[in-house]
Amino acid sequence: MHCQLLSCICIPRAVSVQPKTTFARSKSANERKVGHCTKVPRSNNMESLQTGYLFPEIFIRESEHMRKNPHARLIKLGVGDTTEPIPDIITSAMAEQARALSTGRGYRGYGPEQGDAALRTAIAEKLYQDTGVKGNEIFVSDGAQCDISRFQMLLAPNVSVAVQDPSFPAYTDSSVILGRAGKLQVETGKYGGIVYMKCRPESNFFPDLSTTPRTDIIFFCSPNNPTGSAASWQQLKQLVEFAKANGSIIVYDSAYAAYITDDSPRSIFQIPGAKEVAIEISSFSKLAGFTGVRLAWTVVPEELSYSNGYPVIKDYNRIVCTCFNGASNISQAGGLACLSAEAYKALSNIMGYYKENTKILLDTFASLGMKVYGGTNAPYIWVHFPGLSSWDVFTEILEKTDIVTVPGVGFGPGGEGYVRVSSFGHRECILEASKRLRNYYK
Amino acid sequence: MHCQLLSCICIPRAVSVQPKTTFARSKSANERKVGHCTKVPRSNNMESLQTGYLFPEIFIRESEHMRKNPHARLIKLGVGDTTEPIPDIITSAMAEQARALSTGRGYRGYGPEQGDAALRTAIAEKLYQDTGVKGNEIFVSDGAQCDISRFQMLLAPNVSVAVQDPSFPAYTDSSVILGRAGKLQVETGKYGGIVYMKCRPESNFFPDLSTTPRTDIIFFCSPNNPTGSAASWQQLKQLVEFAKANGSIIVYDSAYAAYITDDSPRSIFQIPGAKEVAIEISSFSKLAGFTGVRLAWTVVPEELSYSNGYPVIKDYNRIVCTCFNGASNISQAGGLACLSAEAYKALSNIMGYYKENTKILLDTFASLGMKVYGGTNAPYIWVHFPGLSSWDVFTEILEKTDIVTVPGVGFGPGGEGYVRVSSFGHRECILEASKRLRNYYK
Repeated sequence: MHCQLLSCICIPRAVSVQPKTTFARSKSANERKVGHCTKVPRSNNMESLQTGYLFPEIFIRESEHMRKNPHARLIKLGVGDTTEPIPDIITSAMAEQARALSTGRGYRGYGPEQGDAALRTAIAEKLYQDTGVKGNEIFVSDGAQCDISRFQMLLAPNVSVAVQDPSFPAYTDSSVILGRAGKLQVETGKYGGIVYMKCRPESNFFPDLSTTPRTDIIFFCSPNNPTGSAASWQQLKQLVEFAKANGSIIVYDSAYAAYITDDSPRSIFQIPGAKEVAIEISSFSKLAGFTGVRLAWTVVPEELSYSNGYPVIKDYNRIVCTCFNGASNISQAGGLACLSAEAYKALSNIMGYYKENTKILLDTFASLGMKVYGGTNAPYIWVHFPGLSSWDVFTEILEKTDIVTVPGVGFGPGGEGYVRVSSFGHRECILEASKRLRNYYK
Repeated sequence: MHCQLLSCICIPRAVSVQPKTTFARSKSANERKVGHCTKVPRSNNMESLQTGYLFPEIFIRESEHMRKNPHARLIKLGVGDTTEPIPDIITSAMAEQARALSTGRGYRGYGPEQGDAALRTAIAEKLYQDTGVKGNEIFVSDGAQCDISRFQMLLAPNVSVAVQDPSFPAYTDSSVILGRAGKLQVETGKYGGIVYMKCRPESNFFPDLSTTPRTDIIFFCSPNNPTGSAASWQQLKQLVEFAKANGSIIVYDSAYAAYITDDSPRSIFQIPGAKEVAIEISSFSKLAGFTGVRLAWTVVPEELSYSNGYPVIKDYNRIVCTCFNGASNISQAGGLACLSAEAYKALSNIMGYYKENTKILLDTFASLGMKVYGGTNAPYIWVHFPGLSSWDVFTEILEKTDIVTVPGVGFGPGGEGYVRVSSFGHRECILEASKRLRNYYK
């Protein structure tokens, strides 16, 4: 039965398939005899990267599945992509800003590279109350993933890096690209120069810091992508103390902070002393459905300094001025609108909707007797398939139920045996996914 | 006399002054005794950067001038920032896209990291006719300056780099940040690891390639920022042959291509064989007044490969997927609208208006007996003050006429003795600037 009414049925756009498959998979360009090669060597760092970036790779598998099964009614619970419309009050502000650019009074050229002052102040006041974070410590940008790379650019080449295992792949991949990851050890799937902080369910996916070696940089994401778990006050205090004792810098990714429902901290800067040891990267993407609008920010506290006492904020500012040129003024108008009381309430309702989706999916897997984690403080659930390969599970779910997930091992070797299931989606898709999963795994 | 009617009178926004001065100049954070220093070393590369990035530095001097002379009627011919409203047809498309995000049918999340297929195709078809450039070779982005850094990230750490001298500072500064510039030689103002291709007026600011050492990468901007000169067919053929003979990659910056009025090439890909040796970075900023909207693109031809035959486009795609996440879908809707026949005509009219400004300024300096270059194919003119320091000339013009320019040496040691004058501005400002300059230099 081909159900036309299900708006979750996503047939990958033909327009996108072609370039993505061309670059990531097709060997035509690679195998073609090239008439002229430059004498520019390929970077060993780029060569060290494992396969394609995770999410385009999943997209390719989706597309192949659709090619083989053109009538499949695909449900995408893979890439964590928002699906619900943005409240009018926010898009009206963006439309108004766009239209103002056609007027003599409203036209604006380059804005400050760091972001509009009103937005920086609003972020500090609305999202960092009682933390001491000030507007001039907020750097507005076009995306959290972009900010991760910009931060990597300002670091000394040989700094050492730790990541949660599993973790969002951009931390590791950007470390590889900047040459600080060492060699890939095929047997473990780990880069020799990176410290992998194993995150196990027994400790709510918080790493054992007593056995973690010192590194210069600690990437730490909470609520965590992919495990869906948020670190507690006690755990984040431990993390800040650990960084302080080791002289490390924490790069704290709080992109999912708005999904926290219990009393877990929403920002690392709620922990006393964190301004001396951490930067925080966050985003409007999942808070406001801005995945396509592109707007994010990074907090770099004035208190944070290198070993020689030089403030990190000055180097970050230099990078932002040299390697970036500010976020779109239209997106920034939207970001400012998001932070009004009325808009924020509407956004909370949408996040509430996604949380109900999460509960449906959590209950589905739990009722099938599976071990499932996350979901309370994040729009992701993390399902354990002990002893199985996560790519095999991904493939089985895709082939048997036409549902796209993310194989846990894509987030690091510690994700093997798990899949991540996103609860972004229209309710009817989530219910349909639940039905298919119950039918298949019953 | 305080003329309220002159809309060119720009008093720097208080909101912007504070963060920019805080980071770039204030020593408060630097001098403060920090309670805790991390043990993370500051990057030697960041330490090697000369002072602040040029344009924020100019903004600081402007602000200081306004602090000392609060009633000065400043005319900004410094940073090349567009001033004329964007045609309705373009902002309407952006407003419509913004509003569509509030609808179930129109909502869109993540787009392809490489840009919307329709925009990529339109750029290839409208701006690269008869060059063989295809849509899948176009990577849409948030800015040309951002693309320069992204390209730097994919290069091997030890590749060698050449820049025009003078040139847009982001090429050199991003090379310093990525550690491929060597040490700054204080006596010459040059980085030891960078080849400076001296560009003299006698050869229309095209470098003498017969004395230029081989490098892996050649940054080349035409129409040139800052000299305002466009390379001829003959010169670009030479450049492509030079790159081919040396196995180099040209990074061709054509951000001002739409300002060409004579028959100079608008793209490096108009030169036969260029697809094997060049990428091209370009932008909607000066074409469409999108300096604040943020939209640009980079062409990476399938034919371009490293010494081992591996296609550069595959690494560029990996960088775009890992370190970037696509340009704003609203900005992209605007970019697509720009390329309709009607909109492009309206944009051409605005560029024509800026070109008339250029002519007024060219005539002004020429009538004062000064040597002045550029202007025909670019919105910049390049004025020679032989034997003088360009910062001194910058300061003199600012203090005596309240006009902001850019000191030539900010673009490299080859710019010493020159200032760059931008012709972006409202007509009344340009006429007023002309009057002040004629009065002062008569």
